[in-house]
Amino acid sequence: MTKPLKIAIAGLGTVGVGVVKLLQQEGDLLAARCGRPLELIAVSARSKDKNRGVDLACAAWVEDAKALADTDADLIIELIGGSEGPAKALVEAALAKGKSVITANKALIAHHGAQLAALAEEHDAQLRFDAAVAGGIPIIDVMQHGVSANRFARVAGILNGTANYILTTMQKDGRDFDAVLKEAQELGYAEADPSFDVDGIDTAHKLAILTSLAYGTQPSLEHVSIEGIRSITARDMHYARELGYRIKLLGLSEQTEFGIMQRVHPCMMPADAPIARIDGAFNAVQLEGHAVGRVLLEGQGAGEGPTASSVVSDILQFARGEPLPAFTLPAGDLMLITAAHLTQLTSRYYLRLTVRDEPGVLAEITAICAREAISVASLIQHSSSAGEPARIVMTTHEASEAAMQNALASIAALDTVIKTPQLIRIQETV
Amino acid sequence: MTKPLKIAIAGLGTVGVGVVKLLQQEGDLLAARCGRPLELIAVSARSKDKNRGVDLACAAWVEDAKALADTDADLIIELIGGSEGPAKALVEAALAKGKSVITANKALIAHHGAQLAALAEEHDAQLRFDAAVAGGIPIIDVMQHGVSANRFARVAGILNGTANYILTTMQKDGRDFDAVLKEAQELGYAEADPSFDVDGIDTAHKLAILTSLAYGTQPSLEHVSIEGIRSITARDMHYARELGYRIKLLGLSEQTEFGIMQRVHPCMMPADAPIARIDGAFNAVQLEGHAVGRVLLEGQGAGEGPTASSVVSDILQFARGEPLPAFTLPAGDLMLITAAHLTQLTSRYYLRLTVRDEPGVLAEITAICAREAISVASLIQHSSSAGEPARIVMTTHEASEAAMQNALASIAALDTVIKTPQLIRIQETV
Repeated sequence: MTKPLKIAIAGLGTVGVGVVKLLQQEGDLLAARCGRPLELIAVSARSKDKNRGVDLACAAWVEDAKALADTDADLIIELIGGSEGPAKALVEAALAKGKSVITANKALIAHHGAQLAALAEEHDAQLRFDAAVAGGIPIIDVMQHGVSANRFARVAGILNGTANYILTTMQKDGRDFDAVLKEAQELGYAEADPSFDVDGIDTAHKLAILTSLAYGTQPSLEHVSIEGIRSITARDMHYARELGYRIKLLGLSEQTEFGIMQRVHPCMMPADAPIARIDGAFNAVQLEGHAVGRVLLEGQGAGEGPTASSVVSDILQFARGEPLPAFTLPAGDLMLITAAHLTQLTSRYYLRLTVRDEPGVLAEITAICAREAISVASLIQHSSSAGEPARIVMTTHEASEAAMQNALASIAALDTVIKTPQLIRIQETV
Repeated sequence: MTKPLKIAIAGLGTVGVGVVKLLQQEGDLLAARCGRPLELIAVSARSKDKNRGVDLACAAWVEDAKALADTDADLIIELIGGSEGPAKALVEAALAKGKSVITANKALIAHHGAQLAALAEEHDAQLRFDAAVAGGIPIIDVMQHGVSANRFARVAGILNGTANYILTTMQKDGRDFDAVLKEAQELGYAEADPSFDVDGIDTAHKLAILTSLAYGTQPSLEHVSIEGIRSITARDMHYARELGYRIKLLGLSEQTEFGIMQRVHPCMMPADAPIARIDGAFNAVQLEGHAVGRVLLEGQGAGEGPTASSVVSDILQFARGEPLPAFTLPAGDLMLITAAHLTQLTSRYYLRLTVRDEPGVLAEITAICAREAISVASLIQHSSSAGEPARIVMTTHEASEAAMQNALASIAALDTVIKTPQLIRIQETV
């Protein structure tokens, strides 16, 4: 058998420990599948003394993660996280020395992917990051291998398990966002600071990476428009069900006549759309290829086993020696994105308003829509007991986002409209 | 740019034409993604003069497919089909000359995969066949790359679009098998001789290949137990819905205490199981990996675009130069299968009987079940008008297949049981 592949791991959190376990428990199988033994020679993490339930005696302990680049390792596994700081320092140092890197760090790749890919190529090193998007789902592998013969028109994903768990639970239990988030935090499904997950930032990182692979462009996080799920209420869930929809936090990137549009926001989707059925902590990604058509992948988006599966599968590919640029195309061929802005979107919309129960309110609202050339598809007014505010739930036909935003501003400014209007985009075809 | 990869194609049916189109229309994109131009230098098919809507002037016409092995091609694409005859002759001739082969031929790989993999290795050639299973779904790629760090406990798939289309249509329209098959034939969705599709043979070919990749064994078609869907009736569909199930033709391979069990048969599955929701001509494959957990892939299982997508994606991988044994492990390491027999299955069962409406019938049937230690979970007797036969629909708790077969034989032999009993296995967890 050929000589062992020497591996160093930075970061021994959940995923790092999962990777160590896989390497130690499945050593023979992995060696058989990639043609050479895998040898863990060095590790680095915050606390040397912490009991992690794995035996690290065979690996050298390196205090400063960046110094892993100075070891004998052929391959550095970066599992520290964060777009800057020690993670970036280590990856840059390793690549500059011609050492290949595998990382699960979506923030790092979304922010600095193009530059790191170029650095890797310059030093004849590999950079892989299948674990950075959708945990155990091998979506990057599939885009780089199994469906790589396709031009892509659209990539859509449910890319954050925490947000999907919260929305699914809200929908099942009829409870509001705050209550479900609190429970998810108590159960350990959501972080104490849930912003990355529920405000769409994590989804945006992943979407920026998928966009780059789909269209051969440099990752461009700054062109992703991002909205989270904090404003979604039990009432919206109720109306969505009545209208035949499910509400999901979707990351969606597509070719439009104006360029590539990347957006992350809650969506109403037909309840029977395959991607609308993905519940709980599961993730899914749907590709639309010009030859293959629609392909959907579904699996666990996070956690020790699934994410370690992606990291170690990347290790096997590297060990086999396939030369593959980080984003499929050589770094120098990655185009700058021609970005379409969200205001250039055409979509159907759901609008929920809380209004004073007075004559003329509906006339004011529908006049604004007419002025903006927004055609109303359905409208229900739920009147309450005398003196109480009424609710108006409206859906539109296809309309321009720019017009919809104008209308929304005018409607929100009406004296008769009491609360901030709720706008949710309707995605009829995903 | 490095020198072109020279390609020869045998077979210019739907898929062959799709491959030619992709190569011709997406030449620049494909070259960028694999780092070298792809050049079609020779083709072979039955009729030279047929108008296929593609320009073949640039490629040499070779009368005898096998002679493609004597051309300058680096890579032979075999799209003739069939486990023997010209397809096998060409693949063997090419591999023996050290020319790599990509094929969509499931019958060939299911029957001769291990021998061809060994031949490829002996001559330092590659053999790839992602298009052989589930058309556009890159399931083989995923097993060889994206989730290759896993041990697999189970692989399950809806692998035949024709059978799935028929079952889906029966379920939606409440019609019987024969009528829906006839319509599918008229619409071109089913062959004039539908046996491969509806009798489970095509599914068995594909399952044998997936089994091999999952467990590192030689493909072993003779150990797949196969039942088709001809016996399924509109009545079964009706009762399945009442019981909360969907009926699907499933290919399923799993590790059991007795060895690897491979089986193809109609299954009742909970209607909300992800794989039960795959409708129409779509295919799906679900993997159960020890680290990654459940991963589901869904896409089009046949047709020009999807199958050509898989063939050309395989071409790109080959062009990049990744050395990968046909079944991931070196051919010499593929084990002979330790096969479990269907009689060793433990399952729940659905049984539908047509009986004389006489006293004592139920007592006879339940006595037989009791004798075989089969515990009845639910039982409904639908009595008809006087003198008409009655129907009994029964489900069991977990029982041994051997006991169930004994019971079935005894029940079928009862004077009071009029028609052949209908037995469908219930797969509670997929």
